[in-house]
Amino acid sequence: MMYSNIPSAQTLVLYFKSWGIKNIVISPGSRNAPLTLSFTKNSFFNCFSIVDERCAGFFALGMAQQLQEPVALVCTSGSALLNYYPAVVEAFYSDIPLIAISADRPDYKIDIGDGQTIRQKNVFENHIGYSANLKQDASHATETYLSLNEVGPRETQEEIQKYNEVELASALEKVILEKTPVHINIPFEEPLYGLSGEAGINIQNTKVSARNSQEIQNLEELISIWSSSKRKMVLVGVNQPNSIDNEVLEMLADDDSVLVFTETTSNVHHPNFFPSIDSIIAPIEKSDRREEFFEALRPDLLVTFGGLIVSKKIKAFLRKYKPKTHWHVNEKRAFDTFFCLSKHIKVSPTFFFKSIITSKQIVESNYNSYWSRVRDGYESKRETYLSEIIFSDFMAFSQIQKHIPKGYQVHLANSSTIRYSQLFPMDQSLRVFCNRGASGIDGSTSTAIGASIHENSPTVLITGDLSFFYDCNGLWNNYKRSDFRIILVNNSGGGIFRILPGQEDTDEFSAFFETTHQQTACDLAKMHGFKYEKVEDEKQLDTVLKDFYDASETPKILEVFTPRLENNKILLSYFDFIS
Amino acid sequence: MMYSNIPSAQTLVLYFKSWGIKNIVISPGSRNAPLTLSFTKNSFFNCFSIVDERCAGFFALGMAQQLQEPVALVCTSGSALLNYYPAVVEAFYSDIPLIAISADRPDYKIDIGDGQTIRQKNVFENHIGYSANLKQDASHATETYLSLNEVGPRETQEEIQKYNEVELASALEKVILEKTPVHINIPFEEPLYGLSGEAGINIQNTKVSARNSQEIQNLEELISIWSSSKRKMVLVGVNQPNSIDNEVLEMLADDDSVLVFTETTSNVHHPNFFPSIDSIIAPIEKSDRREEFFEALRPDLLVTFGGLIVSKKIKAFLRKYKPKTHWHVNEKRAFDTFFCLSKHIKVSPTFFFKSIITSKQIVESNYNSYWSRVRDGYESKRETYLSEIIFSDFMAFSQIQKHIPKGYQVHLANSSTIRYSQLFPMDQSLRVFCNRGASGIDGSTSTAIGASIHENSPTVLITGDLSFFYDCNGLWNNYKRSDFRIILVNNSGGGIFRILPGQEDTDEFSAFFETTHQQTACDLAKMHGFKYEKVEDEKQLDTVLKDFYDASETPKILEVFTPRLENNKILLSYFDFIS
Repeated sequence: MMYSNIPSAQTLVLYFKSWGIKNIVISPGSRNAPLTLSFTKNSFFNCFSIVDERCAGFFALGMAQQLQEPVALVCTSGSALLNYYPAVVEAFYSDIPLIAISADRPDYKIDIGDGQTIRQKNVFENHIGYSANLKQDASHATETYLSLNEVGPRETQEEIQKYNEVELASALEKVILEKTPVHINIPFEEPLYGLSGEAGINIQNTKVSARNSQEIQNLEELISIWSSSKRKMVLVGVNQPNSIDNEVLEMLADDDSVLVFTETTSNVHHPNFFPSIDSIIAPIEKSDRREEFFEALRPDLLVTFGGLIVSKKIKAFLRKYKPKTHWHVNEKRAFDTFFCLSKHIKVSPTFFFKSIITSKQIVESNYNSYWSRVRDGYESKRETYLSEIIFSDFMAFSQIQKHIPKGYQVHLANSSTIRYSQLFPMDQSLRVFCNRGASGIDGSTSTAIGASIHENSPTVLITGDLSFFYDCNGLWNNYKRSDFRIILVNNSGGGIFRILPGQEDTDEFSAFFETTHQQTACDLAKMHGFKYEKVEDEKQLDTVLKDFYDASETPKILEVFTPRLENNKILLSYFDFIS
Repeated sequence: MMYSNIPSAQTLVLYFKSWGIKNIVISPGSRNAPLTLSFTKNSFFNCFSIVDERCAGFFALGMAQQLQEPVALVCTSGSALLNYYPAVVEAFYSDIPLIAISADRPDYKIDIGDGQTIRQKNVFENHIGYSANLKQDASHATETYLSLNEVGPRETQEEIQKYNEVELASALEKVILEKTPVHINIPFEEPLYGLSGEAGINIQNTKVSARNSQEIQNLEELISIWSSSKRKMVLVGVNQPNSIDNEVLEMLADDDSVLVFTETTSNVHHPNFFPSIDSIIAPIEKSDRREEFFEALRPDLLVTFGGLIVSKKIKAFLRKYKPKTHWHVNEKRAFDTFFCLSKHIKVSPTFFFKSIITSKQIVESNYNSYWSRVRDGYESKRETYLSEIIFSDFMAFSQIQKHIPKGYQVHLANSSTIRYSQLFPMDQSLRVFCNRGASGIDGSTSTAIGASIHENSPTVLITGDLSFFYDCNGLWNNYKRSDFRIILVNNSGGGIFRILPGQEDTDEFSAFFETTHQQTACDLAKMHGFKYEKVEDEKQLDTVLKDFYDASETPKILEVFTPRLENNKILLSYFDFIS
């Protein structure tokens, strides 16, 4: 065990150790040397080295997403810190406990023309749980610092120490209890590389325990509304695997007045649930009896839990055909996604459903059975459609999802990937993740690799070409497991823009919306030590997928080329076909 | 000419046209479609398409740096915008007129769980000249929006239009007059793709003209101090090429009481100037007569102009051996880099020196002639040293700088590259740039490619391995000229950390400070259409450099491998050798 000889660096590291924060992702630099030295020279910590801070941010995010405990980032001063921002925002909206630590120069060296120096304090102001701005140790100050601070009584080292400890405890309490990202900015004076065999600091251990009061206000009233509602829709957003009791899922599935709408990222499964929302809604949009069907689908009571919803169609539907009542069940926050939120119920979904479904008396309803027939209809038609179409994004996603081995962790990139994935079944043993907080394409690969680190089972990332090339530096690290797999569906550009309204076949469209390109992953695979395979039809894909997941010495990338100009037509025709 | 049919999008585009802002760098997205359509369908604008917003930011920065006029960025909503932040900070500290435009959702859709939606307003608060938060058009609002805004009198479209125009004018005035980055956030409601054959808006053209008053307060007093100072040091930071009159340079060079210290990024040249500051100071640091020599070097009067200073040694020296007087000459701002700033003189350097050097009566001094002998000494010793050492970073930089063809634009990456470059001469026909505002390694390649676009002469980028791989997406665009050249000095990691104090040969050091790797640029070159060559000794380098700049069909990368474990020793021995 060795520590930096700088008191504030020792204090920070001792707090992290005392509060059990073990995983530290470090980017290179000199200003952060006091932290890098202290973390790497203490065997308590698992340290990871990643150069590109944007990738480091998402790598740590992936790890924290899986561990559901804080993971820390450490970077040097200057713009390094700003490269964390995309991951910080994702953590902010996805409730992931991420700690961004930035080394800084002391105040008197900000905005005086020193190198790698910016205004780091509170730089994530719009999207952060807490910004701890630590103070420069008086005991480690330079003559210049002291001479510039001659006016007025100077803070003693004891006062500074106390201030820093309060700041650290506040930040750590926030990140642990609220699963929200926090920023710790810590100024260091040179010399930065001094070491000490032991910490000269005794920290105040003010560690808090989780507030765990589960209580539902006006429970009787809620039970009465639940029991009397003939059409209850439960809509599940992004949700951690295994977070809902099976008993609850069975109760919901058994009730004909309940329709459970799930997404790929909901991680709840039951044959009576509805896992492809758009396949229900799109045919209604196209029907002459639109009004009538939407009214039949409109719930009396909408209960939502989990994070953000992917389907645009369900949002548009519920915003127009509003339920009488909308409850969001979440211990932390509720978004009024459909502009009709009646109540935010601050307990866990399992606790909520167990409390509310007490009455044996189930209201008479055919809500579920009616829509089950619709679902069975499109599921059968989907199989027919698949047998009739050419190879395309649509077919590729169907094949890919069918072949993922049981128990895998599955990461989906944003945009086309997450949207296509909703159309096909995911085996219930799979645990599925996607950065839906800010829904950016900027860090899916890094997130998946970070998320794979501590897992027992292997991880597969399914991604599109723009997402993959955007985060290609996600592959630049030494933490790629040999069982890590990437399936890249390459449709030579932002295929999603061909699906969204307003597309047209002009040069401007392909250059500025679709951003077409001829890139392949072949050279990147070589550069980063992946085995590379490519396919461009159904048969090849089927063949490769047969042994793609077999044990191998290196990780693998499978690149699936699909026809750029056909994909959108095949997707749109699917909705016609099932209508 | 076509426009989006959304009034605020039309207004923005008309303002840009009216104020002469032509160059627009667009990243793909749907929310920004009203802007993308309006910009790309008007031949007035030069539009560029770049997918990775971090690279787009630096690409636009490079263009604006060369044009010295605003260049705009356009991105979709969500984390896309945050990827601009590194470039925005660089622009903020380097006085580069960059405009970041982000499309957004209307207010009522923020923080309600919609996709790709974050708190975009004022997100660059710490480092921005102006944040214009435009308002959603009343005439383009949805029912939901209107129903949510029922309380109180609603703003009319005329009021919103006026507000938006004032915001736009404020942002554009700021970016043009103060050369500081600005952010324009503009909310759009769906549908986003509607077009109109003509703009339905008549904008108020409130374009301002530059404030151009050049006046020096207390000029007589300054002349008196200047004329009587026997040791005047003029220290030039980052400075635009050809911005100082030759007449001024000659006057300064002719005066034996004046020592002009320049850096590679100063872009001023004269045989009497001192272009390698560290080669003067390092030997003094090592001398037994340190105090005496530093006192002999200490100026009475220090005059600085330009942007940030690279040399850490000159900063340490001037902070300890403070001049009696320090003036910083800059129309916009003055940093108190040495903690002894006496006066900020808000005029151009040329105007200042022409005003101050009026007296024919030159004070008697041998300040320049004394240090000229020192300089001539190390210059001759450097040649001897070069003839004695093995191939290394030190030798490579000497060879590389010698071979750059006259008239080239030269871009230097940060860290080792910029520091080594200071040790060797740069031909005075070269125009040299480096992102010294925040001194990050995050965007050097993108900046260089953006900077090359509108140039008559070709551009060469000299970069290190970490910088190069960090910004490898900088190569992902269709704007690489066939005469663009990259020289990558690959020392297998962050070689600079071997030079800085505190390095040691442990596993932690190489993993977390030096971040050693085995990557080469070979695969990236292939992927992005560059011809690739590599060398690993003096002779090979010499041979390749002979025709490296010849006309070619594709751009080229030359990768120079240097010995990781020897480079720092050779650099440190150099300072011993010349002492």
